[in-house]
Amino acid sequence: MSKVTSDMAMSIDGYVAGLHQSLDDPFGEGVGERLHRWMFDEPEAHKAVLDGIVAAGAFVMGRNMFSPGRGEWDLDWTGWWGEEPPYHAPVFVLTHHPREPLTMKGGTTFVFVTDGIEAALAAAREAAGDRDVAIAGGAQTVNQYLAAGLIDELRLHVAPVILGRGERLFDGVGDTNLEPVGTPTGTALVTHLTYRVVR
Amino acid sequence: MSKVTSDMAMSIDGYVAGLHQSLDDPFGEGVGERLHRWMFDEPEAHKAVLDGIVAAGAFVMGRNMFSPGRGEWDLDWTGWWGEEPPYHAPVFVLTHHPREPLTMKGGTTFVFVTDGIEAALAAAREAAGDRDVAIAGGAQTVNQYLAAGLIDELRLHVAPVILGRGERLFDGVGDTNLEPVGTPTGTALVTHLTYRVVR
Repeated sequence: MSKVTSDMAMSIDGYVAGLHQSLDDPFGEGVGERLHRWMFDEPEAHKAVLDGIVAAGAFVMGRNMFSPGRGEWDLDWTGWWGEEPPYHAPVFVLTHHPREPLTMKGGTTFVFVTDGIEAALAAAREAAGDRDVAIAGGAQTVNQYLAAGLIDELRLHVAPVILGRGERLFDGVGDTNLEPVGTPTGTALVTHLTYRVVR
Repeated sequence: MSKVTSDMAMSIDGYVAGLHQSLDDPFGEGVGERLHRWMFDEPEAHKAVLDGIVAAGAFVMGRNMFSPGRGEWDLDWTGWWGEEPPYHAPVFVLTHHPREPLTMKGGTTFVFVTDGIEAALAAAREAAGDRDVAIAGGAQTVNQYLAAGLIDELRLHVAPVILGRGERLFDGVGDTNLEPVGTPTGTALVTHLTYRVVR
């Protein structure tokens, strides 16, 4: 049966980005690649994990993950990922500002959803068919889905750093039991932990 | 060379205890044994880890880890651990309220230190000789030592639970780089992660 998954790269103190995300600092001030170094420096060592992150049949992400802008759309902005984003599937973007769907190369279509997280998930499930749906981020979006009990499997990629401030995963999620899936793996740059969310 | 270590059992969202710790709820409301179940249910599986937690030659702990009371001492209170505490070494307790040392069975002596974390650590180093010094907890105490750059090795025992509130490890510690030591181990009840603190 298909699952709702979420992959998050986080610091050991639970931050997935710093403060003041911007075009120049997509992961926030002082963060740079510190949470994602393993992706760039050791792609072969983490191939299965990296493949898993983009394996879903549809994705959901928050507006702030799609764009550094806020408020009304700058229609020239087509995401951080260039002409051919790595998703190769429909990506439902949560926003308060309507926008026409945006078709990219390689099968990625960004669809802008203005009626909330449940509607976005329903549309993603429909689009994914028998495949999984991935809640791609950022922290606020994943926290909303966790708080609503709508994520089945959480895959944490823990970087060896204490950031001390930023966008915190689990903020407002409340008491939730987890169950480890498999055994932890990793390298000096990251530890991969997978949990089933118990309901 | 001897190290300053700290072992902390924490939730995946970084809490080491709940709110409102008391005589009846030593780990705070709603927490019970949820962070420590591995210690009680699987002591054999974690023998090396458990031995490591009490292997130091001296310990430092916060007043709130020693006692549920606050303010002036209740001299009838001799700690949570019965007549023979598991430390078998000097334990320096940080407090604002002077108290005579308290000698227990089996080599544990609680020494009450009123002149701050650096003085307590110096006394512990002196008592430990060539052996390690362990900062035993709780969160506020470990956070103060981390913020001051005085901990060499952090050993996290991560329970598969999101607590959502409580006493948070890393609060106020600020940006700190870590380096994993060894590989993660664990069972369905806990994941053990060891980090060297990089200075």
